[in-house]
Amino acid sequence: MERGSTTAMVSAVHASAATLISKDLFVKAPKLQDDHHIHDHHDQALLLLTNGGGRIKIVDSAHLNGKQANDDHDHDLTITHVPNISGWFAEDCPILWPGQAHFLKIEKILYEGKSEYQSMMVFQSSTYGKVFVLDGALQLTEKDECAYQEMMTHLPLCSIPNPKKVLLIGGGDGGILREVSRHSSVEQIDICEIDTMLIDVYKEFFPDVAVGYEDPRVALHVKDGTLFLKSVSEGTYDAIIVDAFDPIRCDHELHETPFLDLVAKALRPGGVLCIQAESLWFKSLDIDQLLSKYRQIFKGSAAYAWTIVPTYPSGVIGFLLCSKEGPHVDFKNPINPIDHNGSYGVAPAPLKFYNAEEYFRDFGNKKGLRTRVLRPHLGLNEPHHRQRSYYRCPSKAR
Amino acid sequence: MERGSTTAMVSAVHASAATLISKDLFVKAPKLQDDHHIHDHHDQALLLLTNGGGRIKIVDSAHLNGKQANDDHDHDLTITHVPNISGWFAEDCPILWPGQAHFLKIEKILYEGKSEYQSMMVFQSSTYGKVFVLDGALQLTEKDECAYQEMMTHLPLCSIPNPKKVLLIGGGDGGILREVSRHSSVEQIDICEIDTMLIDVYKEFFPDVAVGYEDPRVALHVKDGTLFLKSVSEGTYDAIIVDAFDPIRCDHELHETPFLDLVAKALRPGGVLCIQAESLWFKSLDIDQLLSKYRQIFKGSAAYAWTIVPTYPSGVIGFLLCSKEGPHVDFKNPINPIDHNGSYGVAPAPLKFYNAEEYFRDFGNKKGLRTRVLRPHLGLNEPHHRQRSYYRCPSKAR
Repeated sequence: MERGSTTAMVSAVHASAATLISKDLFVKAPKLQDDHHIHDHHDQALLLLTNGGGRIKIVDSAHLNGKQANDDHDHDLTITHVPNISGWFAEDCPILWPGQAHFLKIEKILYEGKSEYQSMMVFQSSTYGKVFVLDGALQLTEKDECAYQEMMTHLPLCSIPNPKKVLLIGGGDGGILREVSRHSSVEQIDICEIDTMLIDVYKEFFPDVAVGYEDPRVALHVKDGTLFLKSVSEGTYDAIIVDAFDPIRCDHELHETPFLDLVAKALRPGGVLCIQAESLWFKSLDIDQLLSKYRQIFKGSAAYAWTIVPTYPSGVIGFLLCSKEGPHVDFKNPINPIDHNGSYGVAPAPLKFYNAEEYFRDFGNKKGLRTRVLRPHLGLNEPHHRQRSYYRCPSKAR
Repeated sequence: MERGSTTAMVSAVHASAATLISKDLFVKAPKLQDDHHIHDHHDQALLLLTNGGGRIKIVDSAHLNGKQANDDHDHDLTITHVPNISGWFAEDCPILWPGQAHFLKIEKILYEGKSEYQSMMVFQSSTYGKVFVLDGALQLTEKDECAYQEMMTHLPLCSIPNPKKVLLIGGGDGGILREVSRHSSVEQIDICEIDTMLIDVYKEFFPDVAVGYEDPRVALHVKDGTLFLKSVSEGTYDAIIVDAFDPIRCDHELHETPFLDLVAKALRPGGVLCIQAESLWFKSLDIDQLLSKYRQIFKGSAAYAWTIVPTYPSGVIGFLLCSKEGPHVDFKNPINPIDHNGSYGVAPAPLKFYNAEEYFRDFGNKKGLRTRVLRPHLGLNEPHHRQRSYYRCPSKAR
């Protein structure tokens, strides 16, 4: 499972500043006050920026001034980082999830390393088993990964009859592969994961997750997801699962229409997509807009679903499900039920979490009961009220 | 909304030791190692005990030795408290939720006080609005209270036709009253809350929650819940909501059969109860056992439901729903839908969260799809596997 990375804890960043120069600054820097010159490093004032995709970039103030946002709606942004607690881990998300932090007690650091693409850490936690951290963002814990992997896989696969060909973009941990393997109708499972070091780390430390790679139907493609999609024939897949990022980062290239057009092309008519779609509690989440966008691109049905993962910010993560124009797909009433006691595939244990009908928030349903749009943010009730975001898509008009 | 209180942060306890001598030590002290003599106070070694109900008692070591548990299954208990971070709040639940903590940034402390029964604090958080803390346990935030109040109210009330008389035990914040007030069929809303100071604090700092008291159908009974139930006629209420504790504390008097027998007696045939039932992720939760117990006492149907509250441990809290023997109640298919756009009652805004059919985990359903018992704890799959608890009910056999 791969969430969009968020900022690492301040101390970790300071210690490994050289490794965190990101290649991809997604947003223009907002106007910052002097107190955001958090680190003095090598006689330069350095600023810690969190971009839309969460990659960290450390720039000097001169460079920053040249990149100041020109959006009229920009405002001074006060960033409060989560303090460092020795012996505990927390994500530091001062822009995406300000004013809150979830800490896990570290029993032992098991691994630290860095691939060509990202930094990784594995630690043994007190009560969540082993934990995998990617560029400072918690990706997975042994205790609650089932709730994510099972939902992300079976929500789409149980909604269509006899899925045969499945593509997974990202998901290098192997957990979704493990879940796909429970489906006996599946004949081909392609996974597109560019970071082989990540796979090796998961295989070593999370064998019950990475067991998915042992399924003989799995073919690993070490390739960029966009390039891979460009190489596949139209209508190849029954289902595509994108476990690579949080699409709410509206300026991430994978959320852009070009990528989604490629996904749509690779699906057969009536094929389904499942992609991460942030938490119900996320301040910038506009579910209506998401659903509208995906219906426009895929021209089939769309639904927003979610699952509970205590170790993710807000304890919840959502999914956008949609189908390509063709045979109708009703995600809320799955037609391809999975045997909860079945043992098909390579999973070492039966399902722990998935339950077909329970995690949907539907919109536009004519029955009326389900038309409430969740706006848990204080005071916001209207379905079309756009919540103010702390960052702006540099090129999108508002 | 009132959760079972948990231990306050260590620093708060230390500073206000005199106020935290509890009247009710629920569990016998486990054998403790020397490193549990956390505080040296007045030349005595004091021990910080967290009992099943979460009340804190500070005892001297001599007193403790006299109370050592005699349960053969007791084991040395290493307690790791959550460190104190200046300017941030977190519950410290080293026994109930070990190895984790959710911190909220404090902008300003708005109120601190103590009634005859409990200590209270209100603070302005950075991103969750105002927060109410009771004996160190977070009770409510402005941002996510809707998810709790709405579910706890409408899950039961929407499951029966034309509820007229409703009893609320606890829930002194008024939020459930606010939600009950949306139901036009209701004629009488009795609330039994013993702590009037708590009500006053909510009225002052959380007017959109305490607005429930403004409904003319509401009658406040400042009385112990058990005593109140003994005074009502049999079959008085259509619905009873108990928002006072986490019943998973198996040795809490309110979880005992005598109290539940009183609730059952006060319900009319086919009447319904909704009571807190801990989080799906709670280590000691045995949903099968809970359902079995409530079916045995109430002799109707029973179901376990849950909602998402980011500021509660694990981000999830559950409910036990049951009906008294009589007309059948199907909680998963509510027959008394609420108008999501309605404005009946005193609530200042429409529903933000409630959606009828989505938050159930059903058990024993013959359809098969819903028979999975959630055992998110590492490695546990079996529905009847009893998770080891960190504390024991002193008088119950295992």
